[in-house]
Amino acid sequence: MTATAGRPRDPDVDRRVVRAALDLFGDAGWSGFSIDEVARRAHVGKPSIYRRWSTAADLLVDAVRETVHLVPPPDGEDLVADLSALAHHLLDAHLPDAGRAMLRLRFEAPSIPELRDHWEAIRTSQVDAARRLVHRAVRRGELPRGTNVTLVLDTLCGAAMMHAIARPDDAAPPTRRELDRYVEELVAFVLAGISAG
Amino acid sequence: MTATAGRPRDPDVDRRVVRAALDLFGDAGWSGFSIDEVARRAHVGKPSIYRRWSTAADLLVDAVRETVHLVPPPDGEDLVADLSALAHHLLDAHLPDAGRAMLRLRFEAPSIPELRDHWEAIRTSQVDAARRLVHRAVRRGELPRGTNVTLVLDTLCGAAMMHAIARPDDAAPPTRRELDRYVEELVAFVLAGISAG
Repeated sequence: MTATAGRPRDPDVDRRVVRAALDLFGDAGWSGFSIDEVARRAHVGKPSIYRRWSTAADLLVDAVRETVHLVPPPDGEDLVADLSALAHHLLDAHLPDAGRAMLRLRFEAPSIPELRDHWEAIRTSQVDAARRLVHRAVRRGELPRGTNVTLVLDTLCGAAMMHAIARPDDAAPPTRRELDRYVEELVAFVLAGISAG
Repeated sequence: MTATAGRPRDPDVDRRVVRAALDLFGDAGWSGFSIDEVARRAHVGKPSIYRRWSTAADLLVDAVRETVHLVPPPDGEDLVADLSALAHHLLDAHLPDAGRAMLRLRFEAPSIPELRDHWEAIRTSQVDAARRLVHRAVRRGELPRGTNVTLVLDTLCGAAMMHAIARPDDAAPPTRRELDRYVEELVAFVLAGISAG
């Protein structure tokens, strides 16, 4: 957050604005995205938004960056913990309602000049971070040499994404306990696939 | 295809119309979808479209049905062949350009009355068919009892989807040989995960 003159920013307002920005983008896409409508949905005045973000593109890019931490920083301790955190982040990012914005970004961003480079940078940094996480495990001997990194990440990340977006729209959101159990089983499944490979 | 008076339908025209319908929907979504624009993109006259489809919704639903056979009919012989066919279909359905239409459908369809029920029927039948395929393998003893069907399908289908949509937009389309090799490795990986479970 940048320093602003006058009273300090209200983190609750910022959270509501970011949430409303993702909701609106998920619903209406870039063609329906405006600071006016974000302000309306977030129940804040437009000046509160303009104090932090000068354009609609800045706001959307920031909202995506803050919300979609697809790849957590590896904690440096344990591969299972790293893979579990990665799966949890992908589930969170693709469950309603963030998921609608994520899916829309994946295909709208390449054709929107204001978003293209930002999205590509986010996407690339996430993929690179995920690959580093697996490569490090190979270097440490936690995974065998010759581990197919692409396949490990496709199965782990793809399953988490599929699991999140395949839920019927009218299903109750999964509980934290359900998500924990799913991730535990998924990571064990992928690690079994690697060690049998 | 329904019988029509006069000259027989031209399958090449139908293919171009279906292709154009998916392209347009992928680009512009339901709000930008019209038979006028499909006709323009397919270089066919509107009467050629109206002879077969009476509304834009009919056309889009048919285009999706014909193109997105996510789950092939099991050939009844071999689990590896079934899973490979399933992975190939998911890759094909999510690679450009069909993939843009697929992703858009996943989140637009629930809020579009003309498409909602059709999409839900397609989605449900695909999921059911995929689950039957794995359950049958369990009954036949090709997979162990207690196989986690959800996890098998999430990893297999999720990886294929992720692999298709994660390709950079400017990458050359994968060759059939690359896809074959990827699917072979993926199916082996998933089966290893099951048997180690």
